[in-house]
Amino acid sequence: MKKLINAPENVVTDALTGLAAAHPDLAVDVAGKVVARASGPTPGKVGLVSGGGSGHEPLHVGFVGYGMLDAACPGEIFTSPVPDQMVRAARAVHGGAGVLYVVKNYTGDVLNFQLAAELLEDEDIEVATVVVDDDVAVEDSTYTAGRRGTGATVFVEKIAGALAEERAPLAAVAAVAREVNERSRSFGIALTPCVTPATGRPGFELGPQEVELGIGIHGEPGRRRGPLASAGELVQIALDAIHQDMPLSGDLLVMVNGMGGTPLIELYLVYAEVKRYLDKLGARITRNLVGNYITSLEMQGCSITVCRLTDDLARLWDAPVQTPALRWGR
Amino acid sequence: MKKLINAPENVVTDALTGLAAAHPDLAVDVAGKVVARASGPTPGKVGLVSGGGSGHEPLHVGFVGYGMLDAACPGEIFTSPVPDQMVRAARAVHGGAGVLYVVKNYTGDVLNFQLAAELLEDEDIEVATVVVDDDVAVEDSTYTAGRRGTGATVFVEKIAGALAEERAPLAAVAAVAREVNERSRSFGIALTPCVTPATGRPGFELGPQEVELGIGIHGEPGRRRGPLASAGELVQIALDAIHQDMPLSGDLLVMVNGMGGTPLIELYLVYAEVKRYLDKLGARITRNLVGNYITSLEMQGCSITVCRLTDDLARLWDAPVQTPALRWGR
Repeated sequence: MKKLINAPENVVTDALTGLAAAHPDLAVDVAGKVVARASGPTPGKVGLVSGGGSGHEPLHVGFVGYGMLDAACPGEIFTSPVPDQMVRAARAVHGGAGVLYVVKNYTGDVLNFQLAAELLEDEDIEVATVVVDDDVAVEDSTYTAGRRGTGATVFVEKIAGALAEERAPLAAVAAVAREVNERSRSFGIALTPCVTPATGRPGFELGPQEVELGIGIHGEPGRRRGPLASAGELVQIALDAIHQDMPLSGDLLVMVNGMGGTPLIELYLVYAEVKRYLDKLGARITRNLVGNYITSLEMQGCSITVCRLTDDLARLWDAPVQTPALRWGR
Repeated sequence: MKKLINAPENVVTDALTGLAAAHPDLAVDVAGKVVARASGPTPGKVGLVSGGGSGHEPLHVGFVGYGMLDAACPGEIFTSPVPDQMVRAARAVHGGAGVLYVVKNYTGDVLNFQLAAELLEDEDIEVATVVVDDDVAVEDSTYTAGRRGTGATVFVEKIAGALAEERAPLAAVAAVAREVNERSRSFGIALTPCVTPATGRPGFELGPQEVELGIGIHGEPGRRRGPLASAGELVQIALDAIHQDMPLSGDLLVMVNGMGGTPLIELYLVYAEVKRYLDKLGARITRNLVGNYITSLEMQGCSITVCRLTDDLARLWDAPVQTPALRWGR
């Protein structure tokens, strides 16, 4: 295992120490593993909290800040955070308008966020939960009942975060988060596996001319293995799967996301193929993101996420955001 | 070779097609390989032009935009662009106040930018050139007479770009670019090699427990090979080398840069070690960047760049910037 780390058991806390040092806008409880805005709770604003296993950075810790999350709870690598983190995060960001938990659909995360919500029932904090399950690759997976939550999480956090900044009530913020999830689909492709620090071994093996089609963000198996093909052919497989599940038309928000070990030049090349495919359908990409936003350590490959925009969702996407990993227009 | 590409010979143009589609703020001449601001030349402003081999994205194409470059000339992967690109870029951005070429110190780049400047002598475009050579690892290298230009290029482009936006004259913009270069030092470490599309083979080999200390951004050899050590020990080797060359004190701008295939969580962990080292020296990191800014395709590893700030350089660093890869505060 070749990694820039000190000891496998300290990777997350060591990285949080660095995150805290690099971003004074963040209040980082390193030992307790909660990352919140340093400005504290925003009175009258719904507090957005997300979390999940580490190893997918910048998700979620890099999305804490104005216009997006109020707090994130990072678990150990590829391991759900515990309810205690989620409870403390909710308390830390509650500004009197309740808290929205944004949860990727993995059994451990869903269960722990549910427990946290129950623990908060005795307190005066209203909690709503939205589960993201956008990955069309498989119906059930290694760590999931139902579809996995992947790239749409970035869209949900951005758009619900923008509505929360407008002081919309909890029910409306939860509703827009669900709407984004329902209008979004993802599909991922891996060229190489990744190695978790705890095991020191690749999570799976791929032959030198083999790719995993429909890969999960922890290296869970996808639909099938296929031969390494051109970017154009791989994009077609991914978008065919999405289009079959949710016909693609109208104005689209598209993310071409690197899995962590993919050169940016390849992601732009993939984006060109995505545009070519959608142009043929007559669909129009009106917003895009190209880069590393929800990763799987050093895995090579990419995922494509598409959201069918409405005018209101586009407006919220365009709203100012100021986080370590996503920032514009303020 | 496992890459998300169509054909090795089209990687750069295919990626530029994607870049153009993703960023309407950029005017991308795909066939001619020049990326400029879509807004055209800014009257009365010095035009900043940089360029170099592709494969280091987001450098340079991702740094074209308000507050940074006016144009970038990408060559083929790890191959200098040609003088014709540089000439066309200069013409495209000249707003009457001259053009500054920001050149990384590699023999091909230096020669071609020099030829371009000579070709422009007959035209009414004043050209100044700044060569960046911040890498302390080696004195001469595979593609270099003198030190290599690496991470400081990002600082030079940001800070000179900010001064150019203030409508400073060419001599002043060139002077601040040289000042940043003189006050900056870098050192890189590779855990794995990278594969260029043209060759399909790793540029060098490293054993499973071996790292290259002082790696160049094309995989050129560094000072020596060493055993894989903890992040703390590797950071100490890098910063010892920098500190020996330029004593580190006062206010610092620090970049922890991923080589393309390194998970972000490791970069934050490295940043924590950098801060620990500098704290002991009594030096103070007042500005930072953690992420992938000057890469070597999918190479794993990182580089550390330090600039000794002055108040004026800090002010220019903080100035608004709006490019695909770096944006804040506007």
